[in-house]
Amino acid sequence: MVILTLNCGSSSAKYQVYDWDAKDVLAVGVVERIGLEYSTIEHQALGKDEYKTQFSSPTHKEAIELIISILQDKQYGVIDDISKIGAVGHRVLHGGEKFKKSTLVTDEILKSLKELVTLGPLHMPANIMGIEAARKVMPNVPHAIVMDTAWHQTMPPASYMYAVPYEWYEKYNVRRYGFHGTSFLYTAKRASVLLGKAPRDTNVIICHIGNGASICAVKNGICVDTSMGLTPLEGLVMGSRSGDLDPAILPYIMNLTGVTSQEIDTLLNKKSGLIGLCGRSDRRDVQAAAQAGDAKAQLGVDLECHRLKKYIGAYMAEIGKVDAIVFTAGVGEMGGHIRWCSCSGLENLGVKLDKKKNEIAHCRNAEFEISTDDSPVKVFVIPTDEELVMTEDAYALMAGTYDVHTNFHYSFEDKTYVNKARARGFAKNLETRPELKDILASPR
Amino acid sequence: MVILTLNCGSSSAKYQVYDWDAKDVLAVGVVERIGLEYSTIEHQALGKDEYKTQFSSPTHKEAIELIISILQDKQYGVIDDISKIGAVGHRVLHGGEKFKKSTLVTDEILKSLKELVTLGPLHMPANIMGIEAARKVMPNVPHAIVMDTAWHQTMPPASYMYAVPYEWYEKYNVRRYGFHGTSFLYTAKRASVLLGKAPRDTNVIICHIGNGASICAVKNGICVDTSMGLTPLEGLVMGSRSGDLDPAILPYIMNLTGVTSQEIDTLLNKKSGLIGLCGRSDRRDVQAAAQAGDAKAQLGVDLECHRLKKYIGAYMAEIGKVDAIVFTAGVGEMGGHIRWCSCSGLENLGVKLDKKKNEIAHCRNAEFEISTDDSPVKVFVIPTDEELVMTEDAYALMAGTYDVHTNFHYSFEDKTYVNKARARGFAKNLETRPELKDILASPR
Repeated sequence: MVILTLNCGSSSAKYQVYDWDAKDVLAVGVVERIGLEYSTIEHQALGKDEYKTQFSSPTHKEAIELIISILQDKQYGVIDDISKIGAVGHRVLHGGEKFKKSTLVTDEILKSLKELVTLGPLHMPANIMGIEAARKVMPNVPHAIVMDTAWHQTMPPASYMYAVPYEWYEKYNVRRYGFHGTSFLYTAKRASVLLGKAPRDTNVIICHIGNGASICAVKNGICVDTSMGLTPLEGLVMGSRSGDLDPAILPYIMNLTGVTSQEIDTLLNKKSGLIGLCGRSDRRDVQAAAQAGDAKAQLGVDLECHRLKKYIGAYMAEIGKVDAIVFTAGVGEMGGHIRWCSCSGLENLGVKLDKKKNEIAHCRNAEFEISTDDSPVKVFVIPTDEELVMTEDAYALMAGTYDVHTNFHYSFEDKTYVNKARARGFAKNLETRPELKDILASPR
Repeated sequence: MVILTLNCGSSSAKYQVYDWDAKDVLAVGVVERIGLEYSTIEHQALGKDEYKTQFSSPTHKEAIELIISILQDKQYGVIDDISKIGAVGHRVLHGGEKFKKSTLVTDEILKSLKELVTLGPLHMPANIMGIEAARKVMPNVPHAIVMDTAWHQTMPPASYMYAVPYEWYEKYNVRRYGFHGTSFLYTAKRASVLLGKAPRDTNVIICHIGNGASICAVKNGICVDTSMGLTPLEGLVMGSRSGDLDPAILPYIMNLTGVTSQEIDTLLNKKSGLIGLCGRSDRRDVQAAAQAGDAKAQLGVDLECHRLKKYIGAYMAEIGKVDAIVFTAGVGEMGGHIRWCSCSGLENLGVKLDKKKNEIAHCRNAEFEISTDDSPVKVFVIPTDEELVMTEDAYALMAGTYDVHTNFHYSFEDKTYVNKARARGFAKNLETRPELKDILASPR
């Protein structure tokens, strides 16, 4: 049996096929330009040639039909029949306060998701379209939804409430939700394993740094705080998002320039962060420019690391006793310089990075301990695997064995677990294609 | 000789007269309702009856004329002639990037201040009106301006820049400025004395908590970061201000409710913070309600302390090795519960509060060490004295001995210094009058 996972954006559908019995990824791929004059698919099956083509896909339905058809293709496919798909896991951006764990899709659940569109106007319509299309193409298969926000539902009110008029919470659901939850779940459990502790005894701070970036405080195995808020705009300095700022800057700039609330929202999400500071968002470019003497690029690096360091300190204060700091996602796994800058100076708080170990850790297919042997707080680099969480959730929901993560045991919580696909570097090309970053990262 | 200090709001003028030779406060008072149908003055001179009256004050000029007249009054006054006033110190909210220290007022300086009105539209016009009126009433006396932002001008770019389009900084001066600088200067120097260190060897985190609240990271005696930003809205949870939040909440609420950018700015400044959460802003009321079981008041307390704790941790990470945490201003000096909640759980970071010592420290006229004897990080309660800094700056500017604080020695940096007025509890009534809090606190 295989489990299919789907991650649908407004004009894209990313997918992965996982062989449940072999515990390995069989194929990955992405459809792009859905709804445009022509669409494209890139498909890569284990041990087979890559397949690329253009086709017509006015909606997500045609895209998913093509995916299913290629999966059964003799030359490029990985299953002989659609019935081999045991369950489908769908990534969904926002679960509001309603969804505290993954769940099977029903008409009622879909209705609930539609009520959450206001909270994620850019992502939720596409997520929902993907689910509806997939249910049409595969009506006899259980479909599961896995929310980026669910992991964070354990936060206490002091972490998730804002000091704004209380009715904004009651009427408009204004609160901190947090995102990247599936990644935090995976890396928190993996950190427990590396520490040789049960998740409920584990306190870690996880820095998920991709194009989007957020950080999570995990105490006794559950999320107690995170940097993204009502939306993915708050918190760390990101590729194109501002992260934290004085909220009064918005009316100030609106007043001076005449931009609308919609326009300033776009400016802060798309034209800020590293892009806004130095015109670049790819951290390798930013770092290279900084080294070549570009003062604005250096400012970008400094700001990103400064913000990270502040959050690490803030969460150390919140958690009390921290076992480890974890870096994950593209930049977290590859960006030794950012890890080094954001952790240096934390020696008094028990964090000692090993310069050599940190330098060596620049691939995405192995886990690393990069702190010194005597560092009271360990520092790990752990390649994330959100698809595996989606896969296991979808399987368990289908099998009736699923529960919220504190009562559930994932395969990757075992000491003997090896992430085969990661170790093999499978589909690395797809993951490093810059234009795909927005699709692969979450929230995109 | 006496030094007069003035703190002019849009409809108020607070003043203090300081006897330079006796090193003591002679009189304090406040004019309110300037520009309204009738104005009021409350005046208190050392060892004399309090004086209150109503009078007509269409502009700040009449208010300052009355102040000068009362100061010379036989029954309530403290000087026999206006010529006894050697210099006047004016509090000014915003010095932008131009003013890194206090300075004497000239026509050119006034012009520069007027160019900064955009940065402080609520306070700067009143500050400037006060200066202009005072110069008319006392044309032969040197007038000095003391900016709330000047202390923070030592911040590095990584602390003061936001990750927004770079042109916002170039064109619109968008950056972190910070406020409460005069209070931070006083308490940082006092902390050095209590630690027995030179300011340049002192690392402290100062929590200035009044109705407005901000926190400052001081490394080697200078400000390296602070929580208020372009405006006093950012940072801690305050009496009526939100402090930090996801910036996307503004367009989200504007879109859902139709409020304008001006209206949401007002909502976040006047109807948020503790007022927004639980309908109260006086911390004693909030605390009493929380103890009586009011869940929203408890949420207010929790949020305020949670935010404080996060900032303390963030600044510990920034500074590296912290000598002391300092609490100051109304709530910081009186609010044992808030100090306790925001410091508890920080033991692993070297902060150990002494419960008894903390409880005892609830007056505004003495300095306290409230950490345990073996606490690696000391915790102090230090009553602030912004007027004294203004007084000493004004005197030194008049005398030609003034320089930026790193090259200047204040009287309160001496081991033998005693704040006589504070120790005596002089004018305590004025300071605890709730309706005056907005005037006495800074930024109001």
